[in-house]
Amino acid sequence: MERKAKIGTTKNFAIGIDLGATTIKTGVVDKRGRMLDHFSLETKANKGPNVVLQQMVFAIRELFSRYDQENCWGIGIGSPGNVNIEEQVVRYPPNFTDWAGVAVGKAIRGVYDLPVFIENDANCAAIGESRWGGGSEFSDFLFVIWGTGIGGGIILNRKIHRGVFGGAGEIGHISIDYNGPDCNCGGRGCVESYIGQRYLSQRTKQILEHDPEHRSHSRLSRLVKGNLNNIDPFHISKAAEEGDKVAREIMIEAGKFLGYALASALNVLDLHTVVIGGGVSAAPQFVFDAVYETVHGRVLKTHQNNLKVLRAQLGNNAGVIGAASLVI
Amino acid sequence: MERKAKIGTTKNFAIGIDLGATTIKTGVVDKRGRMLDHFSLETKANKGPNVVLQQMVFAIRELFSRYDQENCWGIGIGSPGNVNIEEQVVRYPPNFTDWAGVAVGKAIRGVYDLPVFIENDANCAAIGESRWGGGSEFSDFLFVIWGTGIGGGIILNRKIHRGVFGGAGEIGHISIDYNGPDCNCGGRGCVESYIGQRYLSQRTKQILEHDPEHRSHSRLSRLVKGNLNNIDPFHISKAAEEGDKVAREIMIEAGKFLGYALASALNVLDLHTVVIGGGVSAAPQFVFDAVYETVHGRVLKTHQNNLKVLRAQLGNNAGVIGAASLVI
Repeated sequence: MERKAKIGTTKNFAIGIDLGATTIKTGVVDKRGRMLDHFSLETKANKGPNVVLQQMVFAIRELFSRYDQENCWGIGIGSPGNVNIEEQVVRYPPNFTDWAGVAVGKAIRGVYDLPVFIENDANCAAIGESRWGGGSEFSDFLFVIWGTGIGGGIILNRKIHRGVFGGAGEIGHISIDYNGPDCNCGGRGCVESYIGQRYLSQRTKQILEHDPEHRSHSRLSRLVKGNLNNIDPFHISKAAEEGDKVAREIMIEAGKFLGYALASALNVLDLHTVVIGGGVSAAPQFVFDAVYETVHGRVLKTHQNNLKVLRAQLGNNAGVIGAASLVI
Repeated sequence: MERKAKIGTTKNFAIGIDLGATTIKTGVVDKRGRMLDHFSLETKANKGPNVVLQQMVFAIRELFSRYDQENCWGIGIGSPGNVNIEEQVVRYPPNFTDWAGVAVGKAIRGVYDLPVFIENDANCAAIGESRWGGGSEFSDFLFVIWGTGIGGGIILNRKIHRGVFGGAGEIGHISIDYNGPDCNCGGRGCVESYIGQRYLSQRTKQILEHDPEHRSHSRLSRLVKGNLNNIDPFHISKAAEEGDKVAREIMIEAGKFLGYALASALNVLDLHTVVIGGGVSAAPQFVFDAVYETVHGRVLKTHQNNLKVLRAQLGNNAGVIGAASLVI
């Protein structure tokens, strides 16, 4: 982490906070969406709201030791769970203990006399990609986060479409098979239950368990040092990129599953551009090709000509930059 | 059809035209969305654009023989196919011959010196239900037309959400099974291929063919006078209402299929209210109950509490009233 001299008195940056279940990522972002500095620390989500809020304050304090608080426009926060942006209250973020309803905005404003904005984390990333990333050329697109789970955000006319309760864009809970596997959400056949981290890892493990040859000698099994319980989508994607046949097939199949869900979403929304971010945005091009071909083959004919499936460009910084963009 | 005296000189009505593949429905609609008079005639869609446009002009002329053109605000048209509302051009309405791109608005304005507005027919019906029908209490809802096919419209903040090319709300082409039956649209497992008129009729026919007892003695077979080729959703719905067991099972199953698709749509859009119109809006309450229960069982928990599945209220007039509302 780079230390910089404190700069002038004119306000010239925002702080963005990406509140994750394991890590709080924070950054100093300028008016062009460039991240000038960053700082991350553990969320300690299992310790309850007070500890997590303390961690957030600690991270902000660290950034203000590098950049003068007087030059800061404000603080933007991207949070999982259900976010009430007016009351700045966060409800039930998955894997956070005791979060029935926490007034995150009020808590931060109680410490720093700065404007505070808060938004759903997927929406933040969508806003970031819209302003400065893979969607900046498009006034309307569907943003997909493909990581631990599958989330998303809908950009209409360059603005986030929040829906009635701020939850629009739940791409992961489009069912692609009404008789499909049970999903955590209570539904069945949700695309998240085919290509979310847990399911993708399990599926890969099962295939390798039935393929002793591949299990012992493949690139994939070397990446996890033979321990199939350690397989995660990062390994699958990396092995696929390096030519591992099983990994490649799994990633292409996953791309197709995502494509089935996206075709339904694009038909309903009349959108033609998809920007895919999250961990998988680093996946090899053939995964994106599989998504594109599947959507193209399934979507309404009027949507086919203009169809675009693009890679997000802000990578892991999308959350922080998008959160900062709430302020800027 | 009631003949009325020509009334005053103050403008006080709009003409609404619901352009269907078999029938052109037109009506005189006042500022409160009440249909004061109506007139229908054959579309002759197989005769090409000029004949259809002549039919539209003929219908308008008939209404103007009853209501003074000088009192008319303008003409609103709801059309199937892809509708460019700015250029007022209609492209490829299904079952219309030679409609690569027809300037419907210009043609009507060439005959009547009145403002002309045109919109997708499903969107018109959604607008009608939003202003004066089953959705009038809700600022945001999903409108579904369940008839020959399955269409829909998305009302956000009391306005129609058109999407990039005016095609938003294509509920019928949400896939509920990526391995499902081929759909006319080129996709697979679209809900329209489970509950559209053609498929529902075929399915019923197949069941009866394998059930000789029911085929010969049921309410359903009496309704079609024993000719299973004449079964349409109206008969199925009517027989179901009158206690026919097979018909009832089929309608409940269809309600469930629709529910699977709606759960995905509501998750993506973050909407909680569905208004169902089209021919099936006359179906017995247990069909609506099946839709409600299925959506409730599948949709995200945050959406369950506020979920509403309602019957459209404008019935067969929704298209005409919605088209007129483009003017009013």
